[in-house]
Amino acid sequence: KMLKRVLCTLLFMGALPSLAELSQGHISVVLLGATGDLAKKYLWQGLFQLYMDQVSSGHSFTFHGAALTALEPGQRVMFDVLKKLACPPDEPPNRCAVLKDQFLKLSQYHQLKTAENYTVLNREIETLLRQEGLKEAGRIFYFSVPPFAYTEIARHINSSCRPPPGAWLRVVLEKPFGHDLESAQQLATELTTFFREEEMYRVDHYLGKQAVAHILPFRDQNRQFLDPIWNRHHVERVEIVLKETVDAKGRTSFYEQYGVIRDVLQNHLTEALMFLTMELPANVSRAEEVLQCKLQAFRSLRRLEKNSAVLGQYQAYASQVQEELQKAQDYVSTTPTFAGVLIHSDSLRWEGVPFLLTSGKALDERVGYVRVLFKNRAYCTQSEPLRDAGHSQCKAKQIVFYIGHGALSTPAVLVSRNLFRPVMPEGSWKEAVGRSDLHIFGQPLSDYYVYNPVKERDAYSVLISNIYHGRKDFFITTENLLASWAFWTPLLNSVSRQPLRLYPGGVENQHLLDFEMVSGEVAFTVAEPVQLLNPSRLMPSDYRTIQSKFRQSPLVSAWSEDLISRLASDIEKTASRTVAHSGQFHLALSGGSSPVVLFQRLARHHYAFPWKHTHIWLVDERCVPLTDTESNFFSLHNHLLQRVRVPYFNVHPMPVHLNQRLCVEEDRGTELYAKEITTLVANASFDLVLLGVGTDGHTASLFPQAEDGLEGAQTVVLTESPVKPHQRMSLSLPLINRARQVFVLVLGKGKHDITTLISRVGHQPRKWPISGVSPSSGQLVWYVDYEALLG
Amino acid sequence: KMLKRVLCTLLFMGALPSLAELSQGHISVVLLGATGDLAKKYLWQGLFQLYMDQVSSGHSFTFHGAALTALEPGQRVMFDVLKKLACPPDEPPNRCAVLKDQFLKLSQYHQLKTAENYTVLNREIETLLRQEGLKEAGRIFYFSVPPFAYTEIARHINSSCRPPPGAWLRVVLEKPFGHDLESAQQLATELTTFFREEEMYRVDHYLGKQAVAHILPFRDQNRQFLDPIWNRHHVERVEIVLKETVDAKGRTSFYEQYGVIRDVLQNHLTEALMFLTMELPANVSRAEEVLQCKLQAFRSLRRLEKNSAVLGQYQAYASQVQEELQKAQDYVSTTPTFAGVLIHSDSLRWEGVPFLLTSGKALDERVGYVRVLFKNRAYCTQSEPLRDAGHSQCKAKQIVFYIGHGALSTPAVLVSRNLFRPVMPEGSWKEAVGRSDLHIFGQPLSDYYVYNPVKERDAYSVLISNIYHGRKDFFITTENLLASWAFWTPLLNSVSRQPLRLYPGGVENQHLLDFEMVSGEVAFTVAEPVQLLNPSRLMPSDYRTIQSKFRQSPLVSAWSEDLISRLASDIEKTASRTVAHSGQFHLALSGGSSPVVLFQRLARHHYAFPWKHTHIWLVDERCVPLTDTESNFFSLHNHLLQRVRVPYFNVHPMPVHLNQRLCVEEDRGTELYAKEITTLVANASFDLVLLGVGTDGHTASLFPQAEDGLEGAQTVVLTESPVKPHQRMSLSLPLINRARQVFVLVLGKGKHDITTLISRVGHQPRKWPISGVSPSSGQLVWYVDYEALLG
Repeated sequence: KMLKRVLCTLLFMGALPSLAELSQGHISVVLLGATGDLAKKYLWQGLFQLYMDQVSSGHSFTFHGAALTALEPGQRVMFDVLKKLACPPDEPPNRCAVLKDQFLKLSQYHQLKTAENYTVLNREIETLLRQEGLKEAGRIFYFSVPPFAYTEIARHINSSCRPPPGAWLRVVLEKPFGHDLESAQQLATELTTFFREEEMYRVDHYLGKQAVAHILPFRDQNRQFLDPIWNRHHVERVEIVLKETVDAKGRTSFYEQYGVIRDVLQNHLTEALMFLTMELPANVSRAEEVLQCKLQAFRSLRRLEKNSAVLGQYQAYASQVQEELQKAQDYVSTTPTFAGVLIHSDSLRWEGVPFLLTSGKALDERVGYVRVLFKNRAYCTQSEPLRDAGHSQCKAKQIVFYIGHGALSTPAVLVSRNLFRPVMPEGSWKEAVGRSDLHIFGQPLSDYYVYNPVKERDAYSVLISNIYHGRKDFFITTENLLASWAFWTPLLNSVSRQPLRLYPGGVENQHLLDFEMVSGEVAFTVAEPVQLLNPSRLMPSDYRTIQSKFRQSPLVSAWSEDLISRLASDIEKTASRTVAHSGQFHLALSGGSSPVVLFQRLARHHYAFPWKHTHIWLVDERCVPLTDTESNFFSLHNHLLQRVRVPYFNVHPMPVHLNQRLCVEEDRGTELYAKEITTLVANASFDLVLLGVGTDGHTASLFPQAEDGLEGAQTVVLTESPVKPHQRMSLSLPLINRARQVFVLVLGKGKHDITTLISRVGHQPRKWPISGVSPSSGQLVWYVDYEALLG
Repeated sequence: KMLKRVLCTLLFMGALPSLAELSQGHISVVLLGATGDLAKKYLWQGLFQLYMDQVSSGHSFTFHGAALTALEPGQRVMFDVLKKLACPPDEPPNRCAVLKDQFLKLSQYHQLKTAENYTVLNREIETLLRQEGLKEAGRIFYFSVPPFAYTEIARHINSSCRPPPGAWLRVVLEKPFGHDLESAQQLATELTTFFREEEMYRVDHYLGKQAVAHILPFRDQNRQFLDPIWNRHHVERVEIVLKETVDAKGRTSFYEQYGVIRDVLQNHLTEALMFLTMELPANVSRAEEVLQCKLQAFRSLRRLEKNSAVLGQYQAYASQVQEELQKAQDYVSTTPTFAGVLIHSDSLRWEGVPFLLTSGKALDERVGYVRVLFKNRAYCTQSEPLRDAGHSQCKAKQIVFYIGHGALSTPAVLVSRNLFRPVMPEGSWKEAVGRSDLHIFGQPLSDYYVYNPVKERDAYSVLISNIYHGRKDFFITTENLLASWAFWTPLLNSVSRQPLRLYPGGVENQHLLDFEMVSGEVAFTVAEPVQLLNPSRLMPSDYRTIQSKFRQSPLVSAWSEDLISRLASDIEKTASRTVAHSGQFHLALSGGSSPVVLFQRLARHHYAFPWKHTHIWLVDERCVPLTDTESNFFSLHNHLLQRVRVPYFNVHPMPVHLNQRLCVEEDRGTELYAKEITTLVANASFDLVLLGVGTDGHTASLFPQAEDGLEGAQTVVLTESPVKPHQRMSLSLPLINRARQVFVLVLGKGKHDITTLISRVGHQPRKWPISGVSPSSGQLVWYVDYEALLG
């Protein structure tokens, strides 16, 4: 009856739907957490907007607020909120008033607590539809509740509130979606038992911000201009920034668990990053194509390391936490409230371009933007004072998606006039009139083409409209979510005990939070007033390395990261000296996990390494095809060879795969490799051999009690490993001992026992092959990290 | 007697050398071309300065002006010049006057025309020395004469004027040193028959400019600051600029033969480039070490191509040439008076950093500088208006060697204050007092540390002093000279018929000469008011390609450069499509010279090419080791594989070198390769085979009348080439015809006859193997350039 009455009113107003049009069916919207903060602030307004926009769409609606609160008080709170709903400025006040009245009548409060409550809700919806003779189009369940409540609610909806066949179910989920990869995976798995992927709408409200939502359409509509320049050859850097002036006061119970990376970077800023870096699908409105391109873009991201980020915390945060969470006076929070993160993509399009993601609380201004700065590729022959400023190609070129607030205080798209005049959809974006007094990123606003939305819309209104339209491309799929957590989790782990820079907050921060890029890492530009104990920020000359002796040979020891830096430098020095002296450098490298970090370091930080004159040999190899992920060579290739320029002729994988079979004696792989060595390496004496040590004391692929390779004339041998894959090829101990230098790298707590053991034993290679490493005329150096050395 | 008298005068003045000190010996300076422009303007003044500086060095001097002019008039002209010599401002006028008087007395004019003249000169020097009882230290012959006179004079000096054993000979040569590599080589060879390398001092007066001369010492003395940042990771771009306001009026007889590249870029700007890019030797004052580093830097330069330069000519030049050289009204000069050149070094240090060399006449200002602009690596969290401007890391960072003129009007070294405070030699450079009203490269002068020379010295004074001190590192050795010409000559050849942009001159030029970098090339930013016929500047969609049929298959034809661009794009399109469809792309490439340009284009312009999923196969190979420069694979490696990222496993060189021997039947290389193909390539059907055509109609290494490979089941064959190296390995015609696509590339006039021939013949593979190319189910496309097609 209620619905009929509403329809009558609508018909009186004219220009409204006939009953035939209403046959599109009925939509029930259930807002869970209807009396919570988010609902009060954005969601009810968004639903009202949906109603105003879609009242003549042919759909009928009912709106069900729900919470744990009992019926009567819940009702009261909810209707207090509804009564305060605002009429948008572009809506005729008359029409709005009528529609608001109807919206209230179409809205109902429900207590949803027990299984029975859900069954009742379902029955009410069914009854209403039957009474009104309406077909059901679908149901929207909006989860505006804390994540711990998700599973319970999901179970009830799935078992009691599914619409009948032919009508759709859409459940809308709000972040946080987990805390790290593992918890996100767990939550996703749980949800998957109740809902199909296409039924879930995970909200990242940044995707509803007009400037962010327009990134992909902009790239699509301006392909002709962007195609040649949207790549590493033209883009200098990209900044994705969300600065806030507010702090976390009053919200520390949430914030203390999450911090700025989980709160802002993992979701909002990462989504913007993806829109910028992904390859453009042929059709940008096809959610599945967009998703695949996004996932590809995630796969291209370079793994973040400890020094990929700078972190800070505003000074008042600690006391706010102590107060709000009743912590002791000496409680130290390690939650960052500021982060600057440097991200690199290894795609051919973006390789080398820095993407800087920055967000923080208690900063000097509130602003959000995505800024693409292009390289200055012009040389202006005319000297500066004599240039016609308007068209100079020597001015900065940028494209800015201005999310809001800040100097402009509205969403905007800005394109430098010396780039191109962009194509913008006329219905939704309009060219702004110049305000040349404003300066944006160092240039007067008149240097840009500036576009503002025709109608500024709140993110939640946009998103609720997209839920209604089933535009899944505006939401985060499970794969997308997990890809993002997979990317961020290693950083979160590695910085969890990182010291934070304290900042006073507001304009007082001055340069304290400025940071800069140095060899693929970031660091604050201004030294800390009181330098904290933080070894990773020290200059190479200050490495806190212990230098001493181990088994009568030099020992270098440090925390693993510093040790790797030192080892990489030492290898480079040896390489440069050797190449200067003899024109080439023969380097034999071991497999295993420890060298991977070394390979990465060599590839990224040692641009002066004489790769062109370096020959790469393998110390040992597993008997698997070279393209097998288990292959030592495969790992070496992935982490090093693919990234530097060693000539093809100088790369010498072990011939474990001959005649389509692996390490068969009669294929003479060992002889082949031995011959290659004697042909190319003078005296079969490698310039540098890098070894590791196994927990059983093995080195190379020479295992305790090995039959071959510990002594004798054979230089390359087939051996048996106690662990899979059993078959191995290895350089022999006598060949290793002919080397001019041997470096042994030992990392990690797991190696502490063997390290202690071999520090005491004598020359007993049959028992512990590593103890047989003793270059006859070369030098041996041990690189052992603190964990292996000290436990 | 003259000398004695002078000595007496000197002794009277006090503080002057005793006779004992004079025992350092006597130096005779002979200035050839003593009455010419250069001598009048700079050289005599430089010699006088030398005398003033060295009068108490222990050496005695005589100065001999020489020219073709007869004695009496020559004498008159020369002494007119000498009388006008200026006293430097820092010299006490009294002392200067006395010294000038002496200088005049020590100077003499000689007519040097015939062999006898030289003999006489030699006798006069000997007589003087004998009379005065002086030991001879050495002789300086300064060639201030046109280069055509060099050989003649050199011959005379060598045969008649060499000093006795124990004394040195230094001949000073002025540019031009040839016109291109060939002429420079010829001149160098001629001179080498008369002088030893260490006797020759080739002047590049830029090496006497104080700011240029200080580049290497600056790099040396500031190693601690520069070491981490003097590389591609930190340097954004380098500009080396010499702008002039004057034009060539009055000098067109010289200028018309040389133009701006030969006049300024090949020598002055290139030397500055070398000082910047070369690796620093341990000791920067050791001429030999510096030379070796310089030569290494030359070897790292990427070859210049037509589009590496933009060229212009000021409008009045044509009429000045017509007038001064009595040319017809319709005479068109192709001599550039403006050039902007983009140079890349392929060294690991500089790869990717653009070096822009610019020079021109009739520009808006007179200025010379070397500017190193660093990347902005900082993100400033504080918004701009709230930054403390003084120390912001977000300001531009640059190091400028200011050669002279321009806004500063003195030589200077400028270092941005947010970089570092440089170490400068106190004796010769002093910190300048701030003049904050001036803006240099977009920043107030107060943003820099600024240093000026303590004493500003004319380049020729510096150089003459260096000749006297035997500082060969200030001069251009033969190797250095030839390396420079070897670098520039290909560009000079390829632009010799390039249209020039006409510019009005002065400030009227506006943006007409601004240029920008696009994919490793440069182009003027403003389109020509009237677009000249210049196909290379067109957009890809506008290729002036003929599309038609050739031997019943599609034909694409264009000028070779455009054809290569089109072919590269087509290959990339095929690759992307194939990878999207089947995950990998099997590409078989031919050897020879034509594909080299293609390889370079693919490496430099096609960053989106799916190399990671591409397998590279060889169509044919010469039976030489893979590291032999004759090897097809070696060339492919150098021009393509070394520059892109094809995984090691995807590279498939032909196994021509097995068991330490080449293409021996029983080593079964052909079977090995055939097996590799069948294992990896579905149906042994390559996705794309690129072929060429020989003048005899051969393709791949399948030659007319070949016994194997034209038909039959064998897929890989050994063949015999009529030219060396005779032995080859090749894919067979049946295998090639299994490919999904075959592209045939034919370039150059030399291929016109065979192109015409095969356009007419039928399927006759035994006579013309190329005629047998006819993919059974794939597509064949011919890429034939205009020269091959039209002759």
